[in-house]
Amino acid sequence: MKLQVAIDRVELDYAKKIAKQLDPIVDIIEMGTSLVKDYGYYALAKEQLGLSHAELLIDSKTIDEGKYEFEKGYEVGADILTVMGASSIGTLNTTYQVAKDQNRQMFIDLMEVTDTKLPEIVDFPDAIYGIHHAKDNKDNFDATHSVEVFHKNYPNVNRINVAGGIDLEQARKLKEQGIAETVIVGGKIMKSDDPIKTAEKFMKVIK
Amino acid sequence: MKLQVAIDRVELDYAKKIAKQLDPIVDIIEMGTSLVKDYGYYALAKEQLGLSHAELLIDSKTIDEGKYEFEKGYEVGADILTVMGASSIGTLNTTYQVAKDQNRQMFIDLMEVTDTKLPEIVDFPDAIYGIHHAKDNKDNFDATHSVEVFHKNYPNVNRINVAGGIDLEQARKLKEQGIAETVIVGGKIMKSDDPIKTAEKFMKVIK
Repeated sequence: MKLQVAIDRVELDYAKKIAKQLDPIVDIIEMGTSLVKDYGYYALAKEQLGLSHAELLIDSKTIDEGKYEFEKGYEVGADILTVMGASSIGTLNTTYQVAKDQNRQMFIDLMEVTDTKLPEIVDFPDAIYGIHHAKDNKDNFDATHSVEVFHKNYPNVNRINVAGGIDLEQARKLKEQGIAETVIVGGKIMKSDDPIKTAEKFMKVIK
Repeated sequence: MKLQVAIDRVELDYAKKIAKQLDPIVDIIEMGTSLVKDYGYYALAKEQLGLSHAELLIDSKTIDEGKYEFEKGYEVGADILTVMGASSIGTLNTTYQVAKDQNRQMFIDLMEVTDTKLPEIVDFPDAIYGIHHAKDNKDNFDATHSVEVFHKNYPNVNRINVAGGIDLEQARKLKEQGIAETVIVGGKIMKSDDPIKTAEKFMKVIK
């Protein structure tokens, strides 16, 4: 399983510093939506961040203007960009095409995707499907259960990414379960006393 | 009726220059999502843009992290921020509360809002409801017809904003119709030979 560390709601300088330190350790470094909104793509360019090992995911949360946002995001060096599953099918087709053309990856954020819409958007064979909760939503969330249910309903989806308050114990369970390709950890690493050491602990659990 | 001019998919310097020139003429200046994604909120701060007359709308297209994105957006001087109607109810409640607390405005983008969801989100009395099409969607679009249908279905919504390929003729019809509070014009002004003169023409038609 892969570990994606989400860097979010911090100053740009700190985000860059921590990204550089996490680069040799983790699989994917996510520059969160708050960093996109506050500072923009250009400030998050892969070259600026100086990444040489980890993949860069920019959490663009594209919902429209798919061609523009994906071309720009890949241009600044993102390996993975995110599109909302709640987008129009047209937008999803467009972003998938841009990703394929550029040999990069598309992550579909399933937040607020209705049960009617979901079956219509699970046919992108190389897309990563992201299961998680809106931060404003206070419902309970069991990661392995959610993954299991999703996998049962959509067995053809082979790239599953899961996020939402994942701690070491949840990560261990997800690894054991063996369905998810990637787990996203945010606060449990970034808000720990030593994010680098904590990231190392997560890596040990999931590899 | 009010005129909102959307500045989008241009370099930051040009966006700032044209915003300053449009400021004394139009009602609302929109900094489009591409400018947010490319350069971030901080680069679009009202003070940086030097606006003194027009209201500033930053098209944040918030879909999650409502508190963070709205607080930050108002902090940099936006009068109006946008939230996707496709967000969770929790997110919409949160952004509305932030807007009320700060005595600013919330614009709900109705793109990709399902017929099931729409009735659940039309109860924010002071919110602006934005009717438009995803750019990736090639369907036909008659602005007055869409406004009429929406108004008939949701007569309690009193702030309607309409966008999508609006030209002078459509703007004139919308003004005659007298339902929409604001019309958004993008390309028809920004891609014209003289955006400032064209904006003046639109203002004459809608006032």
